[in-house]
Amino acid sequence: MRIAVLASGFGSNLQAIIDAIVKGLIDGRVGLVISDNNEAYALERARKNHIEAIYVDPGQCPGRENYDRKIVALLKEWDIDLVILAGFMRLLSPYFVGEFQNRIMNIHPSLLPAFPGLEGVKQAMDYGVKVSGCTVHFVDEGLDTGPVILQEAVPIYDDDTIETLHQRIHEVEHRLYPRAIQLFKEGKLRLEGRRCFIDER
Amino acid sequence: MRIAVLASGFGSNLQAIIDAIVKGLIDGRVGLVISDNNEAYALERARKNHIEAIYVDPGQCPGRENYDRKIVALLKEWDIDLVILAGFMRLLSPYFVGEFQNRIMNIHPSLLPAFPGLEGVKQAMDYGVKVSGCTVHFVDEGLDTGPVILQEAVPIYDDDTIETLHQRIHEVEHRLYPRAIQLFKEGKLRLEGRRCFIDER
Repeated sequence: MRIAVLASGFGSNLQAIIDAIVKGLIDGRVGLVISDNNEAYALERARKNHIEAIYVDPGQCPGRENYDRKIVALLKEWDIDLVILAGFMRLLSPYFVGEFQNRIMNIHPSLLPAFPGLEGVKQAMDYGVKVSGCTVHFVDEGLDTGPVILQEAVPIYDDDTIETLHQRIHEVEHRLYPRAIQLFKEGKLRLEGRRCFIDER
Repeated sequence: MRIAVLASGFGSNLQAIIDAIVKGLIDGRVGLVISDNNEAYALERARKNHIEAIYVDPGQCPGRENYDRKIVALLKEWDIDLVILAGFMRLLSPYFVGEFQNRIMNIHPSLLPAFPGLEGVKQAMDYGVKVSGCTVHFVDEGLDTGPVILQEAVPIYDDDTIETLHQRIHEVEHRLYPRAIQLFKEGKLRLEGRRCFIDER
């Protein structure tokens, strides 16, 4: 299984995936890291791990689909099986989603459908919920609306700050994302409508 | 602490509250049960427990605020400190909410703000989430929008039906609601904006 990771920033989930591969928790490899941000530390992280790192400049491809065509061309050129969004700050076009139907995953720091979009952790704190968490889901054309693959709850304590809560959610993310990827690899994710069942046997 | 319970149906949470009082988990008593449905088993349950049970006919009080004025008059006549909604199928008017500001609680079978309104359990199953739960919250004028007091996550399994999931959520409800009521009694619920902190010490 050849994985591509798309990231706009720090790439901590990219690192978690690389680590999980080294530990044998994921039977696959990261073939390619793509960013829309030339300054993304994720690109540096990829290079340090001898992974091809490509910056695709949105300025050179005006329009979302134009940009996505360039990305999709790269993904096909590199023979990618699974596309992993890891802090990739762009909504995918229907074209991109259609080309990799049910082969694009995202992770989000809340229990979707609660608190989609930017700053999911801050949104949860501001609302005053007592339980948040994180969600791995297949990507569709919407903003964090695709079928849920895995979720895990994370409690919010009275003395939490956005930072302490984000830290605890990140720890769960780094465990959940590799697990979802390996379930995909093993062919255990079965979609019925928008429900995703896990065939453990 | 004199509690009024407003219920439209079976009243399983009313029973859980009565049981918690008998066990000494709530330092208070249910002084009054009110229903908008003359057939509600909650009324029968109240009578069996020697609690005053009053049916207030919505047909006799057209308009939401008219109806609520009748209820509020009863609550004041009975010297009620805390109003507990337990499957009460009416939205409260701003008048009602204003008369019992931060002294009305509701329980909802989802992790709000996800899946508010009717059939929260079915909504969660249909969406395909892996974690749902239940929420005790103060009631404001909105539909399940008030400040969250307590929440607890409940996992959803692949072989769950609406019934099995509802059953597991109910069990958590019957534990969570009495706890929220006793925290209120002990003056430990502190609101800052829409965040509710619990002063445990």
